[in-house]
Amino acid sequence: MKDIDKFEEECGVFGVFSKEEIDISHLTYYGLFALQHRGQESAGIAISNKKKLSCYKNMGLVADVFDEKILSSMKGNSAIGHVRYSTTGDSNVINAQPILCDFKLGKIAIAHNGNLLNISKLKEFLKDKGTAFQTTTDSEIILNLIARQADKSIEDAVISAIKVIKGSYALAILTEDKLIGVRDPNGIRPLCIGKINESYIICSESCALNSVGAKFVRDVMPGEMVVIDNEGIKSIYYSKNKKCAVCAFEYIYFAREDSIIDGIDVYLARSLAGKHLYKETPVEGDVVIGVPDSGIPAAIGYSKASGIPYQLGFIKNRYIGRTFIVPSQKIREKSVSIKLNPIKRNIAGKRVIVVDDSLVRGTTSRQIVKSLRKCGAREVHFRVASPMVKHCCELGIDIFNKKEIVGSSMKIDEIKKFIGADSLGYLSIDGLLKVFEKNEGFCLGCFNGNYPVK
Amino acid sequence: MKDIDKFEEECGVFGVFSKEEIDISHLTYYGLFALQHRGQESAGIAISNKKKLSCYKNMGLVADVFDEKILSSMKGNSAIGHVRYSTTGDSNVINAQPILCDFKLGKIAIAHNGNLLNISKLKEFLKDKGTAFQTTTDSEIILNLIARQADKSIEDAVISAIKVIKGSYALAILTEDKLIGVRDPNGIRPLCIGKINESYIICSESCALNSVGAKFVRDVMPGEMVVIDNEGIKSIYYSKNKKCAVCAFEYIYFAREDSIIDGIDVYLARSLAGKHLYKETPVEGDVVIGVPDSGIPAAIGYSKASGIPYQLGFIKNRYIGRTFIVPSQKIREKSVSIKLNPIKRNIAGKRVIVVDDSLVRGTTSRQIVKSLRKCGAREVHFRVASPMVKHCCELGIDIFNKKEIVGSSMKIDEIKKFIGADSLGYLSIDGLLKVFEKNEGFCLGCFNGNYPVK
Amino acid sequence: MKDIDKFEEECGVFGVFSKEEIDISHLTYYGLFALQHRGQESAGIAISNKKKLSCYKNMGLVADVFDEKILSSMKGNSAIGHVRYSTTGDSNVINAQPILCDFKLGKIAIAHNGNLLNISKLKEFLKDKGTAFQTTTDSEIILNLIARQADKSIEDAVISAIKVIKGSYALAILTEDKLIGVRDPNGIRPLCIGKINESYIICSESCALNSVGAKFVRDVMPGEMVVIDNEGIKSIYYSKNKKCAVCAFEYIYFAREDSIIDGIDVYLARSLAGKHLYKETPVEGDVVIGVPDSGIPAAIGYSKASGIPYQLGFIKNRYIGRTFIVPSQKIREKSVSIKLNPIKRNIAGKRVIVVDDSLVRGTTSRQIVKSLRKCGAREVHFRVASPMVKHCCELGIDIFNKKEIVGSSMKIDEIKKFIGADSLGYLSIDGLLKVFEKNEGFCLGCFNGNYPVK
Amino acid sequence: MKDIDKFEEECGVFGVFSKEEIDISHLTYYGLFALQHRGQESAGIAISNKKKLSCYKNMGLVADVFDEKILSSMKGNSAIGHVRYSTTGDSNVINAQPILCDFKLGKIAIAHNGNLLNISKLKEFLKDKGTAFQTTTDSEIILNLIARQADKSIEDAVISAIKVIKGSYALAILTEDKLIGVRDPNGIRPLCIGKINESYIICSESCALNSVGAKFVRDVMPGEMVVIDNEGIKSIYYSKNKKCAVCAFEYIYFAREDSIIDGIDVYLARSLAGKHLYKETPVEGDVVIGVPDSGIPAAIGYSKASGIPYQLGFIKNRYIGRTFIVPSQKIREKSVSIKLNPIKRNIAGKRVIVVDDSLVRGTTSRQIVKSLRKCGAREVHFRVASPMVKHCCELGIDIFNKKEIVGSSMKIDEIKKFIGADSLGYLSIDGLLKVFEKNEGFCLGCFNGNYPVK
Repeated sequence: MKDIDKFEEECGVFGVFSKEEIDISHLTYYGLFALQHRGQESAGIAISNKKKLSCYKNMGLVADVFDEKILSSMKGNSAIGHVRYSTTGDSNVINAQPILCDFKLGKIAIAHNGNLLNISKLKEFLKDKGTAFQTTTDSEIILNLIARQADKSIEDAVISAIKVIKGSYALAILTEDKLIGVRDPNGIRPLCIGKINESYIICSESCALNSVGAKFVRDVMPGEMVVIDNEGIKSIYYSKNKKCAVCAFEYIYFAREDSIIDGIDVYLARSLAGKHLYKETPVEGDVVIGVPDSGIPAAIGYSKASGIPYQLGFIKNRYIGRTFIVPSQKIREKSVSIKLNPIKRNIAGKRVIVVDDSLVRGTTSRQIVKSLRKCGAREVHFRVASPMVKHCCELGIDIFNKKEIVGSSMKIDEIKKFIGADSLGYLSIDGLLKVFEKNEGFCLGCFNGNYPVK
Repeated sequence: MKDIDKFEEECGVFGVFSKEEIDISHLTYYGLFALQHRGQESAGIAISNKKKLSCYKNMGLVADVFDEKILSSMKGNSAIGHVRYSTTGDSNVINAQPILCDFKLGKIAIAHNGNLLNISKLKEFLKDKGTAFQTTTDSEIILNLIARQADKSIEDAVISAIKVIKGSYALAILTEDKLIGVRDPNGIRPLCIGKINESYIICSESCALNSVGAKFVRDVMPGEMVVIDNEGIKSIYYSKNKKCAVCAFEYIYFAREDSIIDGIDVYLARSLAGKHLYKETPVEGDVVIGVPDSGIPAAIGYSKASGIPYQLGFIKNRYIGRTFIVPSQKIREKSVSIKLNPIKRNIAGKRVIVVDDSLVRGTTSRQIVKSLRKCGAREVHFRVASPMVKHCCELGIDIFNKKEIVGSSMKIDEIKKFIGADSLGYLSIDGLLKVFEKNEGFCLGCFNGNYPVK
Repeated sequence: MKDIDKFEEECGVFGVFSKEEIDISHLTYYGLFALQHRGQESAGIAISNKKKLSCYKNMGLVADVFDEKILSSMKGNSAIGHVRYSTTGDSNVINAQPILCDFKLGKIAIAHNGNLLNISKLKEFLKDKGTAFQTTTDSEIILNLIARQADKSIEDAVISAIKVIKGSYALAILTEDKLIGVRDPNGIRPLCIGKINESYIICSESCALNSVGAKFVRDVMPGEMVVIDNEGIKSIYYSKNKKCAVCAFEYIYFAREDSIIDGIDVYLARSLAGKHLYKETPVEGDVVIGVPDSGIPAAIGYSKASGIPYQLGFIKNRYIGRTFIVPSQKIREKSVSIKLNPIKRNIAGKRVIVVDDSLVRGTTSRQIVKSLRKCGAREVHFRVASPMVKHCCELGIDIFNKKEIVGSSMKIDEIKKFIGADSLGYLSIDGLLKVFEKNEGFCLGCFNGNYPVK
Repeated sequence: MKDIDKFEEECGVFGVFSKEEIDISHLTYYGLFALQHRGQESAGIAISNKKKLSCYKNMGLVADVFDEKILSSMKGNSAIGHVRYSTTGDSNVINAQPILCDFKLGKIAIAHNGNLLNISKLKEFLKDKGTAFQTTTDSEIILNLIARQADKSIEDAVISAIKVIKGSYALAILTEDKLIGVRDPNGIRPLCIGKINESYIICSESCALNSVGAKFVRDVMPGEMVVIDNEGIKSIYYSKNKKCAVCAFEYIYFAREDSIIDGIDVYLARSLAGKHLYKETPVEGDVVIGVPDSGIPAAIGYSKASGIPYQLGFIKNRYIGRTFIVPSQKIREKSVSIKLNPIKRNIAGKRVIVVDDSLVRGTTSRQIVKSLRKCGAREVHFRVASPMVKHCCELGIDIFNKKEIVGSSMKIDEIKKFIGADSLGYLSIDGLLKVFEKNEGFCLGCFNGNYPVK
């Protein structure tokens, strides 16, 4: 159910280490299930029973890749899991994660959320040393960097490896007897720690902890590596040059509303974004509606701040399945909307304020405005609960051609015209920082062009 | 994504007749896709090219049953389609609809939404006459009744058949050259007519018309049969004893919010139900939340009427896929919730008013209250935007054992205790009629035990 | 692995009745597996546990349709099974057998091998009486005829039904408490009885008895119905006009070599056909080869009679799987042969006598001659171990357009030219009867145009 | 359709290089199809269009892995393909071949038939250098050895790699612009060269050449590497210590009868083995039968030499499909045989001489003797058309535990008793060499314990 008009997250990771042999595979399954919004292309779990690592992965949703028979056959006391959204077009099972390898120090599996920036340099270096790459994943590069340091301990090998990679990464690494979590020096992608009985968990978002009944312990810090084994949990700060710059889009769109990332409640952030959006771009109207699902909290916030009543604006048809046939141009033009149908009662004859979380390419926004007008809206005021996206991102979210980002080439009035709205308003960067109640600690690169990593 | 705590609809039907050979199969596909909420077990399309009827059907969602290759191979100028939710346990492809037959007058296909009450008598009669039943569907009974009248015209044969059946039925019937729609004398299940260019459509709900770009013409009337062929559309009132008694649950839960049934806007009805619910059962609180998805409009209505702020209460995980593994008791107890996770920010420390559309078995309501408390709710006030369900239904919705209906054996206080809420309120039957702004024309059997058909 | 150059059998049937509840489903599975050569399109089993009949069937091989989980779920003490080869083009799961029905006397399932000749008359009659046909199978016609006689006992109802059908039929019928086998008055299709402990079996060929460890008891006689229930086995001769006319092609091609049908050993018949073929059409040569698999026994017989050494002539590639891609014209012309490759050592420079069981369309024979020449054969003498096929058959084998049967329009010299052989010889009809060591009791219609049923 | 009683081949390889862009993927498909007997577990094709290498592979038969859509999407002018039989138990798609990698010199794909002996040493060496292994295949080891030499030309890199590996190997290697074939210094596994128009082919057996219409050019020599590119074909002898020792089992069992390997015709070899077997172990009997399929040519040879008539002895049921359910002990004991049923006519009351190609574990032989006796054989004389297998093999054929090889612990009389035959005879090693008409050039290790590689 990919929305081609949004930035897209690459992945979610999950890891668990228990002293006892508990039902690790099911726990990992439900953890990944809670992270499914971070990637729907492939899913995988690697598991260790202290002696042996094995891995099962395939294309598809967590609930489709795994069945009871497979899960029951996966026994062990520690595991990592991964859900993937492909950004590169290499949508192939060979690129599914975790990637499991056999190297000098034993077996190792790795799952990665993020994007490396110095890939070509790293690949050149490794190829010079004789590496033959079987996939196009960053994980395989990291694995090979680790394997080349295998005269050291596994912790030192991992540290050596991550010292040469640049970019964003939240890693879950599994060996026969250790679970390792790593967050990049800028903490661009989130990673947190939870606990359930005597088992430790690391995962991309705290919503996965709720879903398996674990307690939130804390976020992994930028530049921190945590090592979990039979001795307990150990923290290593591997980088001195750390400076928190978590991706602002996690709060705007990627994360699930019931997660808390680096101390900021995602739902609250989206709701406050709606409130500040109204303050910055007030407009008269009869009804406030949100674009489902990620525009809803901001729409509620906008409604509260403005006193203009909130209503449901659209019915989203969720029965897309795996093989939905995209309607032809002819049918599409005739229908109001097949996937997102306006509720006439709340639209017709009204001055509609429609709130979305972000606006990147503008094509869906345009369709939305069109279908609202077709449905009888008297006026359509488009409000975007984040700043104008002007720049491409290479730190782990889907890379558009810069030309496709409307904010990179058009002014706000042109965009308004392009999407056909009566008025258009964005939240300012300052407004966004007010939402976060902090002036720094975020990557705002896609808004202002300043990226924490070059 | 079946919710075991709700009544369940059986089916949705769709039919289209065009004078030209247009892309009938794709149109029917999108029509059924919009009716998918009425049944997710099986899907099928029968198509006629004036000379030949053919049918394709299988278990699963519309988007999974059909692919481009199958749709492209189905050419014709008229079609009917069906989505099915199984109530009987005979979840088998042999019971998928439409059912296609070859009889005296040619080929005929039929799709049915509803439930017959005099099945055993009809089956006994037909078996006495030599009928051998291959399925356990009502449609096969109706087909055999029609086939036994094949010395008449097809219209007369259909009328003869439906004069002996009792219960609820919205039928779409296809022959080589005609599309026939029938609604039972009480209009218990909805059926409406639309038009797109020179093509007529009949379908269970008007949302399917929007989705293919057709205009709503009117509802089929209780006791009416419409016959569409190259001559145009013809209306036959086959029954004198007609009295509208459309199922109230269509407005409460079954239909999609963007449909209009017998002149009543479904979204508005649900929203007004919330408003009247507040008037009848006011309570102090800090936040109003709805149980997704069908409790949301009533929650918004309750919030508006009460002035208590509306918020999102839950994140619903929609990536269930086809093979989701139900969590074991152990994991379920630990987790707050895997499918429906409360948003802590809006719950913790608050007096929460939670609104659902209906309450039948109460088991899900109980889980919801429990998870809200676990999440830190100070008080939990449960509000139900429909009257107390006390009776079983045999007119086309899932038949529970009467014992499972909490309202049949418990008083309101006992139910409150059972679900663990601080207070519990239902909408009254009078309140519901105020919502509808009509005093009659509805089947309220599950509330008051009075059914239009015995 | 259908050979488009041969007549094709329609079906195989199997039935078993046990007094105890033994592992009926597995036994039926292995029985059908042994009959798989009679039909590879669909497979099905209906089973009764005295109270309830259920049925599972699908497209594909027995070994693909059933898995351990399905078989284990099918419990009972009696069952019938069916493998189907489609002759009509309606290759659809709805036409898979057995067909299970619910009628006046209870539940009934039926499996049929054969072909009815008076279908259109029967269908007209039944449609006049109100029957609606859901499939295009003969079985459904027979079932409806039975159902119309349901005021009688089940035995009488079956007899009434088969008295009005004309054509070939070997039937296995299952009710809650009886297994019934019927062979048509001419015994055109085979059916035999076996016994294992206290369980009786009926099946198309005796090879299925070996395969489940049962003993051969006897053939069902033309015009006989056997009824097996808790009382034992009972024989009813329902027709006076019976005259054995078993299809000669059963011995020539359809049956498995290890079966014995109506007292004639299939392997011996094929081997003797080779012997008589030599006597009638001797030719000088260096080697005798057979076309695999059905031409092999006759080739060995020809070799013995002539003293010319027998050799393997071809390697048959059997890894066709379910989705083999037919080679394009270009590749086909280049390759000697993809499915059937000559063994050069035994061909090159030699005068080759190649023996096949029959010759209908001649297209494969032509390819075989061509590939032998390409491989270096000095001479190619084609010998057919059955008489010249000149007529279409409507009694249960694949109906070609008469034009496609080379023997219907060409003389032997023309056929020789058509297939490109140096000489061509057929077995005479007299020769075939010598093989059988009986002058009558066979249907030789496709050779001489005389069919036992009009 | 794996016969657990035989040695099993590991793989087949195929490669093609054309100057023009012809239909390379279909050609490779039919080539692999002809090699399917060498491995049925997985199949794959890697293809190059001069600029880009891509690969498709999966578990299953060639005809099931590839469909028209996949083949049509694979465009290029050179390709390699692989069919695999797993010996190690790691039956996982990750181990399917070809393996495609990206390394210093570009992309490279490799397909391997054989078995390396110094794996642990090679892996230790490579792990010391930092290699992380993702599969358990020999191919991945070879690839990494090549990648470590990437400062050289691709030819030199390959030579450096194969100079350190020990064991048996027939390799097909594909780069963007070259196809490379390598045969180990002892030529243990076969590899030959063919030509079709301007395209060169390398493949495991000549039968694959026939099947795509190519001409046989010559065998690749032991210790030879052939490099095919736009310049034509180039031969490099990379090893001085070469000494032909082709695996004798290729002639006895692995290869297809229509192949010619190192100048020896496989069919002729098997047929002569039967002749010499008679000379060495004559016995009186009424009929000679062969165990299908590989025992048939020797049985015919035995019959010719002895004058005792040859007959078909068994019907082999070939409809095993992918999910055949192995019969339980109970059914197996009752049935004569489900997969291999004796033809009673040719067995009962007779002194039967049954010829098989080899005898390794003896369990199937025992079943065969048992079923022949059950079928009424008066005497059963077992003849094996190869010498007694006494030793395990590590050069590319399935490794049994030595204990399972009856010849390693039992004398011939004990084996006779074990399988229950009246007499048992093997071909002598001398006899086998007479068959080959050469005294050396073969690996006879499993017979005499002398392996060409330690």
